[in-house]
Amino acid sequence: MTEQKKKAYTLGEIAALLGGTVQGDANITIEGLNTLEKAKPSELSFLANPKYASQLSSSHAGAVLVREDQASSVSGAALVIDHPYRAFAKATHLFDWRASVTGHISPSASIAPTAVIAADASIAAGVVIGDHVEIKSGVSIGANSVIERDCIIGERTRLEANVTLYPNVHLGQRCLIHSGAVIGSDGFGFAPSSDGWIKICQLGGVRIGDDVEVGASTTIDRGALDNTVIEDGVKLDNQIQIAHNVVIGAQTAIAGCTAVAGSTKIGRHCTIAGQCGITGHLTIADHTHITAMSLISKSITEPGGAFSSGTGQESHQTWKRNVVRFRQLDEMARRVKRLEQQIDDISTKGFDE
Amino acid sequence: MTEQKKKAYTLGEIAALLGGTVQGDANITIEGLNTLEKAKPSELSFLANPKYASQLSSSHAGAVLVREDQASSVSGAALVIDHPYRAFAKATHLFDWRASVTGHISPSASIAPTAVIAADASIAAGVVIGDHVEIKSGVSIGANSVIERDCIIGERTRLEANVTLYPNVHLGQRCLIHSGAVIGSDGFGFAPSSDGWIKICQLGGVRIGDDVEVGASTTIDRGALDNTVIEDGVKLDNQIQIAHNVVIGAQTAIAGCTAVAGSTKIGRHCTIAGQCGITGHLTIADHTHITAMSLISKSITEPGGAFSSGTGQESHQTWKRNVVRFRQLDEMARRVKRLEQQIDDISTKGFDE
Amino acid sequence: MTEQKKKAYTLGEIAALLGGTVQGDANITIEGLNTLEKAKPSELSFLANPKYASQLSSSHAGAVLVREDQASSVSGAALVIDHPYRAFAKATHLFDWRASVTGHISPSASIAPTAVIAADASIAAGVVIGDHVEIKSGVSIGANSVIERDCIIGERTRLEANVTLYPNVHLGQRCLIHSGAVIGSDGFGFAPSSDGWIKICQLGGVRIGDDVEVGASTTIDRGALDNTVIEDGVKLDNQIQIAHNVVIGAQTAIAGCTAVAGSTKIGRHCTIAGQCGITGHLTIADHTHITAMSLISKSITEPGGAFSSGTGQESHQTWKRNVVRFRQLDEMARRVKRLEQQIDDISTKGFDE
Repeated sequence: MTEQKKKAYTLGEIAALLGGTVQGDANITIEGLNTLEKAKPSELSFLANPKYASQLSSSHAGAVLVREDQASSVSGAALVIDHPYRAFAKATHLFDWRASVTGHISPSASIAPTAVIAADASIAAGVVIGDHVEIKSGVSIGANSVIERDCIIGERTRLEANVTLYPNVHLGQRCLIHSGAVIGSDGFGFAPSSDGWIKICQLGGVRIGDDVEVGASTTIDRGALDNTVIEDGVKLDNQIQIAHNVVIGAQTAIAGCTAVAGSTKIGRHCTIAGQCGITGHLTIADHTHITAMSLISKSITEPGGAFSSGTGQESHQTWKRNVVRFRQLDEMARRVKRLEQQIDDISTKGFDE
Repeated sequence: MTEQKKKAYTLGEIAALLGGTVQGDANITIEGLNTLEKAKPSELSFLANPKYASQLSSSHAGAVLVREDQASSVSGAALVIDHPYRAFAKATHLFDWRASVTGHISPSASIAPTAVIAADASIAAGVVIGDHVEIKSGVSIGANSVIERDCIIGERTRLEANVTLYPNVHLGQRCLIHSGAVIGSDGFGFAPSSDGWIKICQLGGVRIGDDVEVGASTTIDRGALDNTVIEDGVKLDNQIQIAHNVVIGAQTAIAGCTAVAGSTKIGRHCTIAGQCGITGHLTIADHTHITAMSLISKSITEPGGAFSSGTGQESHQTWKRNVVRFRQLDEMARRVKRLEQQIDDISTKGFDE
Repeated sequence: MTEQKKKAYTLGEIAALLGGTVQGDANITIEGLNTLEKAKPSELSFLANPKYASQLSSSHAGAVLVREDQASSVSGAALVIDHPYRAFAKATHLFDWRASVTGHISPSASIAPTAVIAADASIAAGVVIGDHVEIKSGVSIGANSVIERDCIIGERTRLEANVTLYPNVHLGQRCLIHSGAVIGSDGFGFAPSSDGWIKICQLGGVRIGDDVEVGASTTIDRGALDNTVIEDGVKLDNQIQIAHNVVIGAQTAIAGCTAVAGSTKIGRHCTIAGQCGITGHLTIADHTHITAMSLISKSITEPGGAFSSGTGQESHQTWKRNVVRFRQLDEMARRVKRLEQQIDDISTKGFDE
């Protein structure tokens, strides 16, 4: 039983892989990563935030990723590097638990004869692959995932277990799709009639770029007529809902449980916190930042802005009183206006009724 | 590789299927649908909203679904019809990508011997069907879906891939259940005790009417003692949570990520936007409309009302200031009241302390 | 076709199983449970809330679970017991529909040769179990669930259908994990760089205690370096998102659609309502109560408090006016302050410009 796939590297090997300069003994063995506070002598740590610099001297880390200006504070070995946090991120890949792709196809997978599977792709047990699907080189499909017809999975993309792709979903290269994700489900479109809702069949597909990560149980609907589009480098956390015909610009990151309604276009390099709601048919400018649980119901045209909504946390007792006042807020505003007029009248005319 | 299942119809054939009167050449070939702006000569478009009427003359659509009063503005062919948007919705079915039901049962499906499967039902690979399940005529069950014992699936209902039905879930006719949906999971019921929570086993089931759509990763819990009930024609978007013993009235439509807590009864013909929260044991009148991300915590007795909560979108900077004031709102209301008294005192008595 | 697994007990047998004293005929047959209002003569009911005491005389229940001080109001048979609601909760287990664990292993399950499965564990059709997994005594794994390598499933724990466990997830004893749940997916961690986001591989696991329930489509991410931890007796409803390195204290109960961001530590015995958002790196004291759809963005240090946010439900018309005023709230507060100064000036000095 292994806690994680433990590999051992010398600090010198890690320097060769990540760049940077070794300070101290390049031959020490590194078997994992940890925070300055918790690292053991066999572990590599990092100083990403100067406010933790005081931990450098007390840390038991075998070595520390650190910028040159902090290097002198490290008591033991260090790997001196320009961007310690990026280097840490890259170092995590050295200790990743994900198995490399083996090219094994499970005999319990059901693969349509017209599907085209690269020779080195891995298909786990219970996977179902439909007609005309293309699985490119280095792809890994997790157990019991279903890939319906006319999908394309780009090189080195990985689907975890229990993923569902509806027909006509294209994934780029090096994507990672987590368990429970559903891509290509019907957009929510119905025409009202006196006999009830008439379903609008969703005839578009989904196009996902390269290096996209889709979190567990995230759902991305297919387009109504055109495609829903997720551009390169987008990172979607768990339980996000992306409605039909949404476009999410490159490198935008969205945290868990946020929902984006139909036909909204989100710009590039946006960061959207968890549980936000973005209503339909909006345009959100590049580099927009939205804080947690905000409702965005108007387009944002100026790039780089930050937006919020809500009232923030209070004790339930004071909140109950303030909420009552919120419902009277318009009336209170009118009373303040009247008071201002009365004061103005008094100041101007005195009172001589 | 097909973008969608392309079928070709003459405009005359479409008129025969949808109703309406052809204006212009009934023999032109229609191979798909699109908006006025994007339609090609091989595509049928529609004018649902008069504000787009100016696009009629510039559209390249081969034909347009249009009301009689707008027909003269169409330069090419038209299908003149009373409700163009409904006609468009119906036309999407002509080009749907969903395969017709074949009656094929995959050899990799695991079907209990006591299950009763109609001769023309389709069961995809990896499906698991429990004891005493009844699958009616024209049903299609998607790959790796699990239908536990004592479920009934009505005629022409379709489950997409990776759907889960717990025991004792009944679905009506012509329903569509999307991937990742879970129907019949335990309601959240526990009795507190000094030894921790005691689980209340959830002994009811779920009853779903005809023509219901359940979105991807939507969850519907079974009832505690009685059933949870979703009436005919209800449309549920993705990632909705329906708790135990909820009743949702016929033709109500609920958008993504909304949650309805236990034992609440929602009326008929309601429209509930995304990410709303509706607390438990409420009654919501027919034809109620609730806007996005609203918290509804009191029953709504008057039919046809619209309800909201929240503060709406602001720049983060101004929001921060206003949120501080929200926490002082009750105090501010008292200060306004005192000011009014002071003004009243001054106006009445002057000041002659 | 059975609505539920009907078993019959005499009232005397139930008393022997639950404790308490029979008042009236101990030989009457009980075949199910129901509310006072709906119970039939073959059903056992309960009086948990004194406000329903008036229903005791009109109920058709065959017997009622009731405290001693109410026993005289019961017209028929009663089981007199200290905590009727707890007794009701325990009684539901007598009528549970869940089949007992049979020790059957489906031939369509794919089980790695290095996995260790207890002789009496049940493994349903389509299950996939990875290397070095340990399945303890009395465990039941639902159809098409996937358990990846190095997981441990404690005694008598039950996974429903279509559950996904990533590698290195340990579940304690007597847990219940609902369909669509995903445990061990990657935490949402990326380092920004000029070339886009660099993934931080998530090297920790998930540790879940005893008697934990995880709802349908709930997602629990693995830790970045350490583990994500769910302590004994925690109850998680459906569609909850637990981010990496979160710790949830024993016996805490969280309702549907709540999200907890990374590294937050929630205390013991907390009750958190539905759709709450709890931001990252917070500490929430024991016995904290949070009301529905609240955003919690600051640590709570005092145990036993209740917290809320939001504005509460209003008619859409009045809400629109009040929301406009909310955006002017800081300005209004300044105007009230100025009015107070003006009144103070007038009262002090009179006006003699």
